[in-house]
Amino acid sequence: MRPEISAKRLMGRVFELGEIGALEGGGVCRLALTDADRAGRDWLVAQMQDLGLSVSIDAIGNIWGIRPGAQDGPPVMIGSHIDSVATGGLYDGALGVLSGLEVVAALNAAGMKTQRPVAVAAFTNEEGARFAPDMMGSGVHQGTLDLDEMLATRATDGSAVVGEELDRIGYRGSAAPITPAAYLELHVEQGPVLEQEGIRIGAVTGVQGIHWTEFTVTGQTNHAGTTPMALRRDAGQVAARIAVAADRIAAENGPPQVATVGVFELSPGLVNVVPEQARLTVDLRNTDGAVLEAAGERLLEEAEAAARAAGCTLRHRPLARFAPVGFDAGLVGQIEAAARARQLSVKRMPSGAGHDAQMFAPNCPTAMIFIPSAKGLSHNINEHSEEDDIAAGAQVLLDVVCDLAGGLA
Amino acid sequence: MRPEISAKRLMGRVFELGEIGALEGGGVCRLALTDADRAGRDWLVAQMQDLGLSVSIDAIGNIWGIRPGAQDGPPVMIGSHIDSVATGGLYDGALGVLSGLEVVAALNAAGMKTQRPVAVAAFTNEEGARFAPDMMGSGVHQGTLDLDEMLATRATDGSAVVGEELDRIGYRGSAAPITPAAYLELHVEQGPVLEQEGIRIGAVTGVQGIHWTEFTVTGQTNHAGTTPMALRRDAGQVAARIAVAADRIAAENGPPQVATVGVFELSPGLVNVVPEQARLTVDLRNTDGAVLEAAGERLLEEAEAAARAAGCTLRHRPLARFAPVGFDAGLVGQIEAAARARQLSVKRMPSGAGHDAQMFAPNCPTAMIFIPSAKGLSHNINEHSEEDDIAAGAQVLLDVVCDLAGGLA
Repeated sequence: MRPEISAKRLMGRVFELGEIGALEGGGVCRLALTDADRAGRDWLVAQMQDLGLSVSIDAIGNIWGIRPGAQDGPPVMIGSHIDSVATGGLYDGALGVLSGLEVVAALNAAGMKTQRPVAVAAFTNEEGARFAPDMMGSGVHQGTLDLDEMLATRATDGSAVVGEELDRIGYRGSAAPITPAAYLELHVEQGPVLEQEGIRIGAVTGVQGIHWTEFTVTGQTNHAGTTPMALRRDAGQVAARIAVAADRIAAENGPPQVATVGVFELSPGLVNVVPEQARLTVDLRNTDGAVLEAAGERLLEEAEAAARAAGCTLRHRPLARFAPVGFDAGLVGQIEAAARARQLSVKRMPSGAGHDAQMFAPNCPTAMIFIPSAKGLSHNINEHSEEDDIAAGAQVLLDVVCDLAGGLA
Repeated sequence: MRPEISAKRLMGRVFELGEIGALEGGGVCRLALTDADRAGRDWLVAQMQDLGLSVSIDAIGNIWGIRPGAQDGPPVMIGSHIDSVATGGLYDGALGVLSGLEVVAALNAAGMKTQRPVAVAAFTNEEGARFAPDMMGSGVHQGTLDLDEMLATRATDGSAVVGEELDRIGYRGSAAPITPAAYLELHVEQGPVLEQEGIRIGAVTGVQGIHWTEFTVTGQTNHAGTTPMALRRDAGQVAARIAVAADRIAAENGPPQVATVGVFELSPGLVNVVPEQARLTVDLRNTDGAVLEAAGERLLEEAEAAARAAGCTLRHRPLARFAPVGFDAGLVGQIEAAARARQLSVKRMPSGAGHDAQMFAPNCPTAMIFIPSAKGLSHNINEHSEEDDIAAGAQVLLDVVCDLAGGLA
């Protein structure tokens, strides 16, 4: 007899946490280390204690609660985050933590002790919306980011410092970080693939590498009526060619390569003036690090050629570079098998966005479970996932945790 | 013996008027109907009176001074404007009016009476920087624009109304408009062609037609990491393709076709978000009205195809449509001949920008003389033309006026 999750109990917690920092019209604003984040943390700690977990807080404010196992040793950890972007949804992050609580609640209800301990964790500032970088808490916890440097980080609006805010909200703890026996994270896909393909569960194979570049093209401002084409140095035309080249490179590489030009600005930006300067960003992602690097190099070559041909100068600046992260193949297979055993359609897929899980991947078997996002929307107050899909994802999570932790009836 | 202009006298007036509304660091701000414009007008009227001209002001504030001829009848008119953009140079407009004064001064100095009267005119609000449309005074004077409608025009910043400002600065007159025997305008090129080709005088054959369109592309906002290329509706990529198409159409048509994308904006404009909306403007110009229309139609077809291919919707809105204006072929030839007679290199060329002259072209023989603009700069405090070129242009103007007005020793 396998324990079963309760969709009702899980959704109750989703909506309860969703009240904290709730925005008019839907969604939440629980920016990291704000009063709303503190209220969410206080609620979470109380929930953990109600479930009998023993709660720890570390120096960067990560919270985890441990349900003891029959044996001592590292726990199977279920984690995510409860901070949000300024106009976030109810599910991004929160679902991962609350499904962890539901796993514990289901084990409790079944009166089931596991061999290994089970931990539920919420990591500080995953979003990076108020303090950069993102995945700050999990990064510190797993040794990728420096604690002191992170504590000294000032908010992007200059208003506050991480360490001071942790003190202010009472979440600067002293527990030592732990490396779990395995790490699992249930998350909304934040993309359209599962919904479009009608698939219930994503077995996430890893996180795409990220290659962000800002290009600044400088030409010469001129009167749009009086300057013949041959005498122009049009920065905007170079930028348009870079944008088209990014799209073409993605098409030629094929999936999972993506390329996005999200920022495109002209200066002076007047109808009848040839632009002197253009600034654009190109966001390239791929699960294959070598292919990603090659795409970035090819884009740069094409950008330089376009600038040269137009008599413009080109500057480029890396805004972000993250190598792809691969999850544990055995664990990905276990997620797939668990979904199939529940008659849930399942698909292996990469994550296009970053997640706390990627910080654990180098140190312990790690994987993620995705469920469909309505219209692929996320970081949006209209973010939505269906209750059936949430329950299915939580059940797969529970089943895999039982396998990993070694269930005892 | 032909009369000669005095470069020193002309430059003296250029710098004197340049003191009125002078900006720190150079250039002037004499926005139409402001106190600075009034001060410029007062100075101009005094100069006209000193030169013995009989001054008239019409209902839209145009100022002209007439030097009588041996015969009555319509004058040969030399005109331009003394209003400027907010950060204008010393030469745009002012040079045309002041070279007219210099023509009169040279005729006076030579004790020469012409057969026809000679008029020097400054038209209200040529720039259109404070009140739209531009070429307002000459447009009303020549019957293209409605007087009452123009008097009721509110400033683009909402702060004032043309008629009230004319009253306030004391320049709402009552003189009847006149149709001259011929109209001449000396102007800085505001483009780089003469300087680049090392030519002293442009014999302006007409004004290019203008075809401005604003395109708004609407797609779907999506996460840049989690949305496969095939599932995107990227408004920015459509906009980039429209920009490239505009450039290609200009290249394929060849000179004098020009195409400029001066505005290009993405929304929401974030590095990692597929743009939902893009707005761009395309400024097409050509001296051939049919070719210009065809270029506009082809651009629209390509824009629609690009939007369709990307699953985006396209809206388009005409921002400006002006048919090309052709100047008087005989008069253009006279300017060319006058330049050659003075051993000045000369080239027939269209004007890429609009000028008061185009309002006169349908009603009387009209042409313009261009002189080189350093680096093609205009509407810029660094606008500059060399004294030698200014003197050469004014001399050609004087020589042509003598021919047209019928000189008497």
